[in-house]
Amino acid sequence: MPLDSGEELGPIQLAYETYGQLNSEKSNAILISHALSGDAHASSCQSQTTENPGWWDDCIGPGRAFATDKYFVICSNVLGGCRGSTGPSSINLRTNKPYGLSFPVVTISDMVRAQRHLIDYLGIDTLLAIAGGSMGGMQVLQWTVSYPERVYSALPIATTARHSPMLIAFSEVGRQAIYADPNWNGGDYYDGPRPNAGLAVARMVGHITYLSETSMHQKFGRRLRKRERFGYDFDTDFEIESYLRYRGNKFTERFDANSYLYVTKAMDYFDISNGHGDLVTAFAKSADITYLVVSFTSDWLYPTYHSKELVGVLTAVGADVSYCNVQSSWGHDAFLLEVETMTSMISNFLDRVVKEKGIRL
Amino acid sequence: MPLDSGEELGPIQLAYETYGQLNSEKSNAILISHALSGDAHASSCQSQTTENPGWWDDCIGPGRAFATDKYFVICSNVLGGCRGSTGPSSINLRTNKPYGLSFPVVTISDMVRAQRHLIDYLGIDTLLAIAGGSMGGMQVLQWTVSYPERVYSALPIATTARHSPMLIAFSEVGRQAIYADPNWNGGDYYDGPRPNAGLAVARMVGHITYLSETSMHQKFGRRLRKRERFGYDFDTDFEIESYLRYRGNKFTERFDANSYLYVTKAMDYFDISNGHGDLVTAFAKSADITYLVVSFTSDWLYPTYHSKELVGVLTAVGADVSYCNVQSSWGHDAFLLEVETMTSMISNFLDRVVKEKGIRL
Repeated sequence: MPLDSGEELGPIQLAYETYGQLNSEKSNAILISHALSGDAHASSCQSQTTENPGWWDDCIGPGRAFATDKYFVICSNVLGGCRGSTGPSSINLRTNKPYGLSFPVVTISDMVRAQRHLIDYLGIDTLLAIAGGSMGGMQVLQWTVSYPERVYSALPIATTARHSPMLIAFSEVGRQAIYADPNWNGGDYYDGPRPNAGLAVARMVGHITYLSETSMHQKFGRRLRKRERFGYDFDTDFEIESYLRYRGNKFTERFDANSYLYVTKAMDYFDISNGHGDLVTAFAKSADITYLVVSFTSDWLYPTYHSKELVGVLTAVGADVSYCNVQSSWGHDAFLLEVETMTSMISNFLDRVVKEKGIRL
Repeated sequence: MPLDSGEELGPIQLAYETYGQLNSEKSNAILISHALSGDAHASSCQSQTTENPGWWDDCIGPGRAFATDKYFVICSNVLGGCRGSTGPSSINLRTNKPYGLSFPVVTISDMVRAQRHLIDYLGIDTLLAIAGGSMGGMQVLQWTVSYPERVYSALPIATTARHSPMLIAFSEVGRQAIYADPNWNGGDYYDGPRPNAGLAVARMVGHITYLSETSMHQKFGRRLRKRERFGYDFDTDFEIESYLRYRGNKFTERFDANSYLYVTKAMDYFDISNGHGDLVTAFAKSADITYLVVSFTSDWLYPTYHSKELVGVLTAVGADVSYCNVQSSWGHDAFLLEVETMTSMISNFLDRVVKEKGIRL
């Protein structure tokens, strides 16, 4: 597969899951795109156990926002990831060793190009919808620019049309934390100890940015962790410290440090106007797509003005755009947490798309 | 000197600088407190060269906000720091080795207690004012609670009465980055290589939080650094990346990683109500002090509501409080950058204090 960098990559494997049934006209397919740390396991609605929840369990299943009793929902791990799709931890068949940093730098557009092959493979001509939050939302926008004829509707949630300098800054700090870990060893660590300390720090930075100042007050405040008074030492004093340490360490069990580098780099490069000059030109062929743009009031990582700018551009090209700025105190994480609002908003939107586009389910 | 932890520390050295002349009545002294990464060199107004600017050069000097032609300005490096005052990199006279982690954990209140000895040593009975931004503002508040009879007026700027969980979270990530550096070696590194990689990452996180999303757009945008197009590699693509790397590395030349741990810990412990039960009780004896509270609209690290809460408490105890929420796009760094506004605001405030308190200069 050709890549935006000019390099070629192959063979490529994409890990994916599906929920619900594809109807005979193949008209009920919805593609879900995941965020930085996500994977293909978006829902456990078809699992026998609840041991392994999906990252968007609350929104995917019978009667939920993406109702699997009506729709066929697909989620694939991104190119460059480490959860089954080809990425830097995959074996390079030419050398029989993991790629490491010899893996080519991929973009959001490359991730979407790979997903299009998956949709081709599944025999789906046009997706009823494509939806995702954060980096998932970038893939949503890229789909509607790269393959507008393959998409009826799009739900970019808590996202942006171009990665801001602040987002790049947080990405870079995460990468620097990984580079600073001697175990990283220039990306060549698959035979030895992993750069878990660096990856954990990167993840901790991320977790702060996913919360809001308000939600941190609500969840943690200044409460102490398993002590009555300050320890006057460098053990864990506060609940918030314990939370970050736990989440940072937990992440290293399921994520590859090199994938963290590649996926954050893809996000940093993301500017939907790349190669088009400006945003309006980029979306010029997307006028027939119905959009639901969603932002959250307390999301300081992807502030609402990003979504408002996007809505302005989509309106300018003549697309049918609905916009909802959801009142929420949960920060960026709101797209995973504001379940009730999301469910009614998304299910009504999908019903409308089905009706207005004359889609037979 | 006794510490809040119950331990004792001594002998203690405090590095300090003074600017201007102490008058014969010793009534024109202003103490300036510095922030996390600052030191005693607040101004170069008395230097022969401009090679080594002070961290608050724009505000301290003849005709400036803290006018050294009228006032005697003092700034000391905090206890626990690494710029001349006793801290973890100092030699423990009992062992003839640097303290490292055997240095006791100190608090903002301990820092202020040490400063009070300096003010005693200088023969100053009552400070005309005490001023500082960020962690400097915490010391300002602590002075007015610990030694209200020694202070006529106080200028807590871009600060808070208690460190929020988000602030603790950012502190903890910085500390984790240092712990993750093998050169840190449990704090025992003064004979070997320094944990510069970890300290640089900590500093990079800090720098992001000192800016605002808007100021990052203005300063860096998505501009590339010395390249025309994406490199598709992990070198520096963007200006913002280059800025962070530079500032992170630069910091390691002048700061000690263990001091970073101790000073951030002191900030995390800071809650002016510690030992008092609540904020109003804490400030109960501060009613005779005149306050100028300053916040900045784009400061998301110390959001304005922190200052507003403080103003409410100070008003409740009957103190004379002026409050200014300065319109600024510079984020937390605004207290170093909004020179024009600060100059008129602070100099008018000090004039008023001198007049109303009947202080003879």
